[in-house]
Amino acid sequence: MNIRFYNARILQMNGSVEVIEGELWVKDNKIAYIGAGKASNEKWDKEIDCEKNLLMPGFKDVHTHSGMTAFRSLADDLNLQEWLNDMIFPREAVMSGEDVYWMTKLAILEYLTTGVTLIADMYLTPETIHDACAEMGMRCELISGLNKFGPTLEVMENRFIELNKKSDLVGFKMGLHAEYTCDRELLEKASELIHKYKAPVYVHMSETETEVKECFDRYGKSPVALFDELGLWDFGGSIYHGVWCDDADMEILKKRNISVISNPGSNTKLASGIAPISKYLEKGIIVGLGTDGPSSNNCLDMFREMFLVTGLAKLKERDPKAVAADEVLKMACVNGALSLDHEDCSCLEEGKLADIIMIDLRQPNMQPILNIPKNIVYSGSKINIKMTMIDGKILYMNGEFIGVDADEIYRKCEEITERLKDI
Amino acid sequence: MNIRFYNARILQMNGSVEVIEGELWVKDNKIAYIGAGKASNEKWDKEIDCEKNLLMPGFKDVHTHSGMTAFRSLADDLNLQEWLNDMIFPREAVMSGEDVYWMTKLAILEYLTTGVTLIADMYLTPETIHDACAEMGMRCELISGLNKFGPTLEVMENRFIELNKKSDLVGFKMGLHAEYTCDRELLEKASELIHKYKAPVYVHMSETETEVKECFDRYGKSPVALFDELGLWDFGGSIYHGVWCDDADMEILKKRNISVISNPGSNTKLASGIAPISKYLEKGIIVGLGTDGPSSNNCLDMFREMFLVTGLAKLKERDPKAVAADEVLKMACVNGALSLDHEDCSCLEEGKLADIIMIDLRQPNMQPILNIPKNIVYSGSKINIKMTMIDGKILYMNGEFIGVDADEIYRKCEEITERLKDI
Repeated sequence: MNIRFYNARILQMNGSVEVIEGELWVKDNKIAYIGAGKASNEKWDKEIDCEKNLLMPGFKDVHTHSGMTAFRSLADDLNLQEWLNDMIFPREAVMSGEDVYWMTKLAILEYLTTGVTLIADMYLTPETIHDACAEMGMRCELISGLNKFGPTLEVMENRFIELNKKSDLVGFKMGLHAEYTCDRELLEKASELIHKYKAPVYVHMSETETEVKECFDRYGKSPVALFDELGLWDFGGSIYHGVWCDDADMEILKKRNISVISNPGSNTKLASGIAPISKYLEKGIIVGLGTDGPSSNNCLDMFREMFLVTGLAKLKERDPKAVAADEVLKMACVNGALSLDHEDCSCLEEGKLADIIMIDLRQPNMQPILNIPKNIVYSGSKINIKMTMIDGKILYMNGEFIGVDADEIYRKCEEITERLKDI
Repeated sequence: MNIRFYNARILQMNGSVEVIEGELWVKDNKIAYIGAGKASNEKWDKEIDCEKNLLMPGFKDVHTHSGMTAFRSLADDLNLQEWLNDMIFPREAVMSGEDVYWMTKLAILEYLTTGVTLIADMYLTPETIHDACAEMGMRCELISGLNKFGPTLEVMENRFIELNKKSDLVGFKMGLHAEYTCDRELLEKASELIHKYKAPVYVHMSETETEVKECFDRYGKSPVALFDELGLWDFGGSIYHGVWCDDADMEILKKRNISVISNPGSNTKLASGIAPISKYLEKGIIVGLGTDGPSSNNCLDMFREMFLVTGLAKLKERDPKAVAADEVLKMACVNGALSLDHEDCSCLEEGKLADIIMIDLRQPNMQPILNIPKNIVYSGSKINIKMTMIDGKILYMNGEFIGVDADEIYRKCEEITERLKDI
């Protein structure tokens, strides 16, 4: 489809955070032109009057567990151990691939309402997550959650090969669940495998203070230092959470080009703590954002994460200047893409993938229009997502999901959660 | 208008937090019936199929400065002194009553999108705030912001008499800006006046650590204790913020029946700190919620405040069990009304005012429906407000403002902010 957006404000985010006025043309799945209106011989399938609303790069939710929509509001106001052991694990043990497929589809609906155009999803059955994303048009990097209780290294390697072949929209990256769910032997073997493929590694790390303490007890060093020693950082990657990294950890992250994916909503709701975002930025470490799963957060809402990542930094530093709005927008749009080697959709530029959202500026929370980036970061809400386009396809517009039956997804998910809730 | 809502889920909040299924009837501006469907001879002006969506009491935003929409995104990422002295005060000095009128109307649009049915508004020209609210159908208590630089006690008394006569929808209560903007003489005279009318008092208090320290320097006691000594708590009232109250303060608040209106969004963005909400609740102090003004928050979004008031408590206490979701809903719906002696709209019950919102449960962030109160508190968003009714009138439905030209308000507000921004 060739689509012309005109009468638009455009926030490209290729470098500076500035709003221009003009047109944006999409040809097939790519951005073909951004600039002033000009003559064209193009035959447009669709011409969209943006009515001075804002086109900008989609948000990248680069740490989530989509299928945990099954457990939203089932297990809140509990401590971590009760939550995991009593509520989550027994139910995950009986979840089928098809259950994950439907619950992922529910999550994708929600990503579309919050303007997310790329997710990194670590959950039980990557094959069915793949299918849910490919069918609904969601760009996704599947992340394995290797651990000593789950599928083997061989399964991970096989998925790495097979799932990277199936679709342009969905990839697979090697990930480990966490230091504390792997033993040393598994970590060493994982390191061999990532060296075989020169692959980056993605892993939950330094989420809670206890986790870091226990790693020190086991190995005499932090999880970040342990992974460094084992060569697991040799090809980059990301740590999820990074709430409890110290200065020495940060030196390693910077040196090894490891990004930190912050999940402030989840860290807040589970009382894990406040990540040292200002310090990461000072040291030049790339910070991206994730919602984490909808059982710990509980919602998939990038506006919440954007407000929190700067708001909590302000509280932590006791400094209202901490982590300015422009920086937050870069985290949400650009850095998340970079953390997954997805430069192809990091910003709006000719030749990049057409992963574009439209922000409704004619809602009261976006008025007056004195500073659009600040309006988005400090005042934005799902109500402002007027359109979500992924890979050149409009998947959500004016509150409607395009080409998908949301009610069918709700019905299927209700059946699944009815079955799972009383286990 | 007589309106019948049927096929509804209903969260009454008169006591427990439980969802029933049935009908709700509105006659004129009151709730006439809640319960199972039954025969009626009523001639309905409107019958609304709720499609199993949720009717619940409107949210009460009981501390705000609506007119500060003029400064949204004008002055962020600044410290408090720069913000106030360089950005806000010079502009407020030239704001006219008409400016405040239009900027308040803009805020009212936003309140409707977040399901707010009652505000307590402290800002420059109560007369024009009154008119904006009365014209748009917003229930409001105007709160004076008495201080040594502004209108006199006599003006406040006159407004108390006159503005309480003008409309059933809008009242006026006596408020002081803060201890630090009043001298002792003014506080003493204010106390005489509130004794004359046996009136509760509303005031910014213990928002920042510095403010409390400086009060100790001046008077050898906390602002809460000072007000107690001066008899300012003799007829109840509320403190806004209450971030830095100690145990002794809490004893006074409890004894004097003073509620705490928490503004976690503003306290976060301005790095003021985290209020001791769990302790307030333990001691039986009533806690309500406010957004504060849209220049410090920056948005008027009760979903943000609800998530933050529990999330920040969890972080502060390092306990994910802190401040459960049901408690948060009570703060947002019931307690705010009680803090303003508005029992008439505190919950859904026959005879109460018809201040009702409808939550769209058929959005992905409300699915699956395992626990509706938790869904609202932890996952809710403006996108879920399907209807806002105040005083029996539907003012917002399915994304449309009823009987008001939002574009005209945006245009007027743009003119005003254009004029003010470069001062």
